[in-house]
Amino acid sequence: MAPRGIPEPVLIRGTGLLGTSIGLGLRSAGADTYLSDPSPSAQAVAVDIGAGQAFPGDLTAAPSPGVVVVAAPPDVAGQVVIDSLVRFPGAVVLDIASVKGAIRREVDAAVVGGTLTPAQAARYVGTHPMAGRERSGPVAARGALFTAAPWVVCAKGDTSPEAVSAAEEIARVLGATVHRMSAEDHDASVALISHLPQIAASLVSSRLQETPAQSLALSGNGLRDTTRIAASDPQLWVQILAANAPDILQILYGVREDLDRLITTMEEPLAPGARLDIAQLIAEGNAGHARIPGKHGAPPQAFAVVTVIVDDTPGQISAVLQDVGEAGVNVEDLRMDHSAGHEVGMLEISVLPGRKQDLTDALTAQGWKVV
Amino acid sequence: MAPRGIPEPVLIRGTGLLGTSIGLGLRSAGADTYLSDPSPSAQAVAVDIGAGQAFPGDLTAAPSPGVVVVAAPPDVAGQVVIDSLVRFPGAVVLDIASVKGAIRREVDAAVVGGTLTPAQAARYVGTHPMAGRERSGPVAARGALFTAAPWVVCAKGDTSPEAVSAAEEIARVLGATVHRMSAEDHDASVALISHLPQIAASLVSSRLQETPAQSLALSGNGLRDTTRIAASDPQLWVQILAANAPDILQILYGVREDLDRLITTMEEPLAPGARLDIAQLIAEGNAGHARIPGKHGAPPQAFAVVTVIVDDTPGQISAVLQDVGEAGVNVEDLRMDHSAGHEVGMLEISVLPGRKQDLTDALTAQGWKVV
Repeated sequence: MAPRGIPEPVLIRGTGLLGTSIGLGLRSAGADTYLSDPSPSAQAVAVDIGAGQAFPGDLTAAPSPGVVVVAAPPDVAGQVVIDSLVRFPGAVVLDIASVKGAIRREVDAAVVGGTLTPAQAARYVGTHPMAGRERSGPVAARGALFTAAPWVVCAKGDTSPEAVSAAEEIARVLGATVHRMSAEDHDASVALISHLPQIAASLVSSRLQETPAQSLALSGNGLRDTTRIAASDPQLWVQILAANAPDILQILYGVREDLDRLITTMEEPLAPGARLDIAQLIAEGNAGHARIPGKHGAPPQAFAVVTVIVDDTPGQISAVLQDVGEAGVNVEDLRMDHSAGHEVGMLEISVLPGRKQDLTDALTAQGWKVV
Repeated sequence: MAPRGIPEPVLIRGTGLLGTSIGLGLRSAGADTYLSDPSPSAQAVAVDIGAGQAFPGDLTAAPSPGVVVVAAPPDVAGQVVIDSLVRFPGAVVLDIASVKGAIRREVDAAVVGGTLTPAQAARYVGTHPMAGRERSGPVAARGALFTAAPWVVCAKGDTSPEAVSAAEEIARVLGATVHRMSAEDHDASVALISHLPQIAASLVSSRLQETPAQSLALSGNGLRDTTRIAASDPQLWVQILAANAPDILQILYGVREDLDRLITTMEEPLAPGARLDIAQLIAEGNAGHARIPGKHGAPPQAFAVVTVIVDDTPGQISAVLQDVGEAGVNVEDLRMDHSAGHEVGMLEISVLPGRKQDLTDALTAQGWKVV
């Protein structure tokens, strides 16, 4: 049965990871989906794994879509949106690119330039599902990719209610959480919570290019965590950063000011007030970090960590966690820490602070080495 | 039975997290340990939890230590090392502060100034166990804290072989991996792999101080990972950063150059070559990131990630991992990802790439939702 509130069929233009995952998710919810991609092989793979039927290559002589989901790369998404608004009268058109203002401006400019009528433009709504950026391609696609992910929907005053409702319904059917905000607020937000971390991770990692191996052998979780996203795709990120340059620049100016202040202070570490200035930077980081929401969007909460040493063999981790479950303690967060030269790992189990002692006692009683 | 190669008793000066943990670990290995701390209450707690016997407050009329472990805060560690070399003739003196050059220079200056004889100074060796910086205080101490952690030992040409061997034996008895390098190489290494990530995390987090809550609600693992260490203690870090200022500055100059280049490029994102410059920064980050060693010090390796959706209830994670164990697949790495607004989590299981499909099939067959 087709989901209510989603005009069918849904045409997905672009069968990369996100487009294909949307197709799979909508199909398994009972929606009728069609797929189109300039790459015949990418489109064929997406069809083969069941994300939808092939839409004719010339985009004609096919069923008229009720919704078009533009899942093209960021730098062509605007043109594909405009093309879709013109080509498919009556269809709601949404895109899923990770920067929203630039595409919004392209659509508005097309109205001013006469390519689009205001009524056509009203059928467009920009959205951003915040999931799945680390992998790519249709083969990696999964219908559940958006489960529990934020999905931002950026309507304007003149966006048609049908467009907003179709976009939000697609997000909900795919299991995501809808966040409504303007394209401007969205872009300012992602500049800070997504684009700045990417730049910071790249700047730190870039310094490692010439580092002697004996230095890198001392690497711990601090370095690993801070640089994890530095492995991202340059071709994708150049599109994202260029599209959101003004918002990112405002933030980078602030970072440069802080960095300059730190450098000046550290050049004279014995000057009066120097230590206070350095401590201030760390304290400001504390203050900002404390504002990041906890899991499930709950207020930030400091969990207590119980660290257990486990051998590096199958079943060890599950054996620990089975004992945790039997102790009736919920795992709030979980990570492994590996160290150089030892075939053991440290399993860090985050629990509510009031449960830490219980869990430590229970695991110790079961013979686990709790650090 | 006392461990071979460690002259006893061992006096630990400073009973914070690290000093107390060393006491606990050495005691459980059979060594005779004494504890001393300027704070009577900190010393009493460490004695109570079994890290060693109380050393007399005036440091006299007590057994003459074979080894003194200086576990005082970084900014007083040098003076406590010099005091120990003078006060305890014949004892090996080692410190565990996280910056090594400054203390080395204090000891050398004491020789030049006549406070120490060259023979006294030869009994000193600087070390750095790289563990446990996120918690503090004797109550958090655990004898197994150093298990599988790197422990850097910085000898000089004139350091006595007894001092080196006692320091390395202590590290080994506590389960750590000994890394030998000069104080200069150590400080340059930690500037890059420890101090730079701390600064980057603080700089990014500092920008979050005024961010609207609706923006922070979109936070994902990228931001969380990049800023995790930003919650560190300003009082400790000001000592570390100030003590290693010259090495850190060299790195920060490079970061500032890259940041300036990025800002200039992003101010003119349509200029010829601008996109190539941005892509270059991300690519340089890729290259540096790829050099970080994999677990157990193995060469960097890209694991495949299998993501499973789990309910947020006790026992769910262990149930998944039990099925992973029964499939005979080793868990190389593990993390939880929580998203705003949903009472579910994504368990990310890293496995060898060749096992990904097997595991996906096995878990799917058991009814798990593999994303």
